[in-house]
Amino acid sequence: MPKMPVAVLGATGTVGQKFISLLEGHPTFEVRELVASERSAGRTYGEACHWKQESPIPAALAAAVVKPTDAPLASPVLFSGLDSSVAGPLEAEYAARGHTVISNSKNHRMDATVPLVIPEINHDHLALVEQQHCAGAIVTNSNCSTMFLAMVLAPLHRAFGVELVQVTTMQAVSGAGYPGVPSLDVLGNVIPFIGGEEEKMESETQKILGTLEGDHVEPAAIRISAQCNRVAVLDGHTEAVSIKLTRRAAAEQVAEVLRNFRGLPQEAGLPSAPERPIVVLDRPDRPQPARDLWLEKGMAAVVGRIRECPVLDIKMVVMGHNTVRGTAGAAILNAETMLHKGLIAP
Amino acid sequence: MPKMPVAVLGATGTVGQKFISLLEGHPTFEVRELVASERSAGRTYGEACHWKQESPIPAALAAAVVKPTDAPLASPVLFSGLDSSVAGPLEAEYAARGHTVISNSKNHRMDATVPLVIPEINHDHLALVEQQHCAGAIVTNSNCSTMFLAMVLAPLHRAFGVELVQVTTMQAVSGAGYPGVPSLDVLGNVIPFIGGEEEKMESETQKILGTLEGDHVEPAAIRISAQCNRVAVLDGHTEAVSIKLTRRAAAEQVAEVLRNFRGLPQEAGLPSAPERPIVVLDRPDRPQPARDLWLEKGMAAVVGRIRECPVLDIKMVVMGHNTVRGTAGAAILNAETMLHKGLIAP
Amino acid sequence: MPKMPVAVLGATGTVGQKFISLLEGHPTFEVRELVASERSAGRTYGEACHWKQESPIPAALAAAVVKPTDAPLASPVLFSGLDSSVAGPLEAEYAARGHTVISNSKNHRMDATVPLVIPEINHDHLALVEQQHCAGAIVTNSNCSTMFLAMVLAPLHRAFGVELVQVTTMQAVSGAGYPGVPSLDVLGNVIPFIGGEEEKMESETQKILGTLEGDHVEPAAIRISAQCNRVAVLDGHTEAVSIKLTRRAAAEQVAEVLRNFRGLPQEAGLPSAPERPIVVLDRPDRPQPARDLWLEKGMAAVVGRIRECPVLDIKMVVMGHNTVRGTAGAAILNAETMLHKGLIAP
Amino acid sequence: MPKMPVAVLGATGTVGQKFISLLEGHPTFEVRELVASERSAGRTYGEACHWKQESPIPAALAAAVVKPTDAPLASPVLFSGLDSSVAGPLEAEYAARGHTVISNSKNHRMDATVPLVIPEINHDHLALVEQQHCAGAIVTNSNCSTMFLAMVLAPLHRAFGVELVQVTTMQAVSGAGYPGVPSLDVLGNVIPFIGGEEEKMESETQKILGTLEGDHVEPAAIRISAQCNRVAVLDGHTEAVSIKLTRRAAAEQVAEVLRNFRGLPQEAGLPSAPERPIVVLDRPDRPQPARDLWLEKGMAAVVGRIRECPVLDIKMVVMGHNTVRGTAGAAILNAETMLHKGLIAP
Repeated sequence: MPKMPVAVLGATGTVGQKFISLLEGHPTFEVRELVASERSAGRTYGEACHWKQESPIPAALAAAVVKPTDAPLASPVLFSGLDSSVAGPLEAEYAARGHTVISNSKNHRMDATVPLVIPEINHDHLALVEQQHCAGAIVTNSNCSTMFLAMVLAPLHRAFGVELVQVTTMQAVSGAGYPGVPSLDVLGNVIPFIGGEEEKMESETQKILGTLEGDHVEPAAIRISAQCNRVAVLDGHTEAVSIKLTRRAAAEQVAEVLRNFRGLPQEAGLPSAPERPIVVLDRPDRPQPARDLWLEKGMAAVVGRIRECPVLDIKMVVMGHNTVRGTAGAAILNAETMLHKGLIAP
Repeated sequence: MPKMPVAVLGATGTVGQKFISLLEGHPTFEVRELVASERSAGRTYGEACHWKQESPIPAALAAAVVKPTDAPLASPVLFSGLDSSVAGPLEAEYAARGHTVISNSKNHRMDATVPLVIPEINHDHLALVEQQHCAGAIVTNSNCSTMFLAMVLAPLHRAFGVELVQVTTMQAVSGAGYPGVPSLDVLGNVIPFIGGEEEKMESETQKILGTLEGDHVEPAAIRISAQCNRVAVLDGHTEAVSIKLTRRAAAEQVAEVLRNFRGLPQEAGLPSAPERPIVVLDRPDRPQPARDLWLEKGMAAVVGRIRECPVLDIKMVVMGHNTVRGTAGAAILNAETMLHKGLIAP
Repeated sequence: MPKMPVAVLGATGTVGQKFISLLEGHPTFEVRELVASERSAGRTYGEACHWKQESPIPAALAAAVVKPTDAPLASPVLFSGLDSSVAGPLEAEYAARGHTVISNSKNHRMDATVPLVIPEINHDHLALVEQQHCAGAIVTNSNCSTMFLAMVLAPLHRAFGVELVQVTTMQAVSGAGYPGVPSLDVLGNVIPFIGGEEEKMESETQKILGTLEGDHVEPAAIRISAQCNRVAVLDGHTEAVSIKLTRRAAAEQVAEVLRNFRGLPQEAGLPSAPERPIVVLDRPDRPQPARDLWLEKGMAAVVGRIRECPVLDIKMVVMGHNTVRGTAGAAILNAETMLHKGLIAP
Repeated sequence: MPKMPVAVLGATGTVGQKFISLLEGHPTFEVRELVASERSAGRTYGEACHWKQESPIPAALAAAVVKPTDAPLASPVLFSGLDSSVAGPLEAEYAARGHTVISNSKNHRMDATVPLVIPEINHDHLALVEQQHCAGAIVTNSNCSTMFLAMVLAPLHRAFGVELVQVTTMQAVSGAGYPGVPSLDVLGNVIPFIGGEEEKMESETQKILGTLEGDHVEPAAIRISAQCNRVAVLDGHTEAVSIKLTRRAAAEQVAEVLRNFRGLPQEAGLPSAPERPIVVLDRPDRPQPARDLWLEKGMAAVVGRIRECPVLDIKMVVMGHNTVRGTAGAAILNAETMLHKGLIAP
């Protein structure tokens, strides 16, 4: 069966590169078009791109000529890694022209008619696209720190109810793109501030865990307090989380619920779906980004140290691969979910 | 005036070295005796010690012969950096022989008759030594992570009442001594576990903020939940803290109270006392261990990002020099306080 | 065909773990016996070992009971990752009992009758084992820093003659085992000294590039000067190399010779053989340990920046995976080579 | 006596900040004017500058208004930390207007009439300024890596003659300015390339060690081969150096010569002069940037591991503070030297 042609927007950037790297050999999607800013357009991708991925540039794409953002595109599905300084109007325009824009950018995430989706949790929110009243659609995934928090809260919210959440993150430098964080700022240091990140973790989680009511999503009534820090780690966000539940539960019950969590991607056997969306580790000093990053090919939230919290009810450590499940992998799983649900015409 | 002779126990270890380094040129105390384990005893300090401090070994001490732990000591005051595997009975014995043991070790901190003191907060607890009914005394300072948390909570507890505390630490490797944390474990990594640290932060803080009632200390009724992490930082513990107050206060009020905090060391002008025990920074991305470590010569708790917390009341970032104010500097300030109060005979 | 049973000596150590990790799924060898010191013997491998590899412990081995070093072994081939404090007599004894000891330890490398082998370069030296006059044999691979230098010098020595070599290394912390280098020593630092390393690079390279003359190896008449440094890198040794050739050659010729280098492992298609033992990169800022470590599955010497040297003739940067091709992978390739040459009875 | 007013060009950059930081409290010079690009001009220095130094911005300067590069300046002496993209014509213009430009930029270093000066070595080259035939003058200091190499070679060249030099550097990220090296490139990595650095080390060293012959400097006939690497160190360049001498000398003789090296700054007691321009350490694993950076207040070349080289004659490790003696401190010492020699009108 022929693969569905897709385009990558912002192809030369860090997120764009990750899209290309993760989509290589994908059973359904095939990257055919690369779009980037004026600076890169017209050059071959191999020339225009400072490739930073571990695997080499796919040969076919290295020779492809990068298109400008105003060129018409033949691909029905566009994966967007556009910089947030331009993503807003550009993504809207692509949608208006009939493309399904699967975006990793923050710009439209909180729009009332744009689904903010983690398929294991709220694939039903995809129905929102009907409210967009345009030829195409925009679908988004969450911020990379939000991802792992939301994945862990979702099954607990269903099982016990979640009321309050305290989360302190220790985030990898790859989350800031390239060149991103200067080495002079982060070597041997902790930077206790990431602009806008705390607000995103608080509002995006409420939307993802919210309920679709007719033409809108009613945010979940969970109060969240986030403190975000940058540390000298290349890949992998670590989060110390404390949770107040509506119905108290012992650490073992919480572990059990997390361990058994499955969703539509697992049931449908989607190509990028992790077998276990949440992996629970038993060793007292895990998870660690340097050791557990690649569990489930970087598509899982890895959890450890589940124990009682003297202030709220339960605390734990959550870790995940911020540029795989936290970014490009999340968007790809969203596209696979839409295809599975018939929301993208094959 | 002649200086008071003091001894350093565990002189070759990391804490012992810091005692020696900080006491060089001290106006009141002079290190005259060095005590270490059998392996080092009988050798000169210069030979026995793998000196890791920035300043060189004081010349007089490099040539001094290290004494074994069973040798009689002439110094009335002993600064103890003994390893916790041996500190328990050894410190008790030194006290029984009439020495005032100013200990940084964890062993006796929670003993009912042993003061656990931060002089700005609870110097009155020093009266507990009378309950020890021995020729000498043992006085302790807190764990290095506890130090900065307790210093910040104390003035808030007085001003507004503190009920609940959530703290997540990002701790420097120097806190684990030498050789301590293997580079293979911490380079580019976060280790979300430090054995016993969370328990210490919870119980020691309650004792320090507790009230002396006759012959014992009644712990403060504050519930604390700590999550402790090791990060790739050399010196400086960073702590993300959220606090529920009895009487709500705005961020500006909290900053004001912290900024104005002073205690006995400041009033008495003790030699090691920081002018400001708490330094409040305004820039949104501070404090940072690599940039703010040496404010007040490493003797302050440095605070920033004071803001409202959606879950508790107030959150902030606290940072301090874990081997200065967090360890040896704390013990030295305790000794200065005792001298000032007449609890050590000059 | 049934696989050949092998044992791993020093199985709980860093090198032993790497043997187990790399031999998992090996087409010819199967790890059946695990040997370690008294501390571990009698316990299951899963309990005795602080596993630090990225892939999990092979399930069959996690449950295996670790044998003491004095237990008789059934495996004809033993991979030795024994600590050098005990490897000398122990390996000799195993060989005396009839085992073929494929050793990564330094103890016997320079023995006159022990082959020090890189199969692409000097597999003929394996004939030396006949001089050992014992029931079994000891065969060694080089030090991890020597490996990448020797691999690059060998084809140049054949093509042009090598007379003088200057090499400065920047070595990863994994080369020192576990716990190895304390983080307090190497974080944000360079340690310009690695005990014994410079001498090994100088003498081992001469032996490997030497010629087998009857019953002994005549070392190559190459003068080598090594300066070894430890840097804050987890895996991957980088080496800045300058070479004086007997017959001068341009940078392009040198690159051509390196690129075309092949040896017995490639011709025989041995399971662990890299397709290209030397990979030459063109980008001016490569190779880099963080980016090029896994080329050829970590079994290649990666070379870049080949250019003229104003002092000697040619200079370049060499990099390789110190715990794969530099350690356990090297030993496994040696064993495969012996099997191929009929030096191990299948 | 009133201090001499000076200006800092490129005041908001990394080098400019270092000038300001090192000149605070200087006995002779007082920073009165701050010059920066259009982006900063007209704003106060406190607002315009992302201050990255450990000490706070001097209060008087924080409130000073930054001047544009085309404003007339009242200060006779200008310290230039201008970016090399603009330093060339700007510095020439300031000199034409009568200012003495003490420049750290690379642009004019190799100009035939511009002195490239390390006062301990070649203060006589300052006479070159007469050849500039302009109202003012331009005087330069070397590249930061060149500095420590040249300081060590100079006394050896005088004592024994230096013919060949091999040097491999491991350079700190602060050498690249701010934002400089992205953390994604250097965390846990070695980058074996720094654009233009190797050429600078080779040519600048020859000029500094050259001899003033009438109206020009005849470069020293020393062949130098440099290999430059960036490592994950904040401050402090480490260099592995091998040297061929004209008259062979034992390691002890070399150490003796280095230890006894003194020059005009020491004899004249210039304010920024280190007591010992070269510090020789005996411990086998020193110098290390994390431990020895601040010897002589960062104004010395620190040397260790002096030993015979099997290829050339002598090898050693050299380390120094790249942003103090390697950059701003070097320029300040040049200005002090000129004042001492009467080349700047007080």
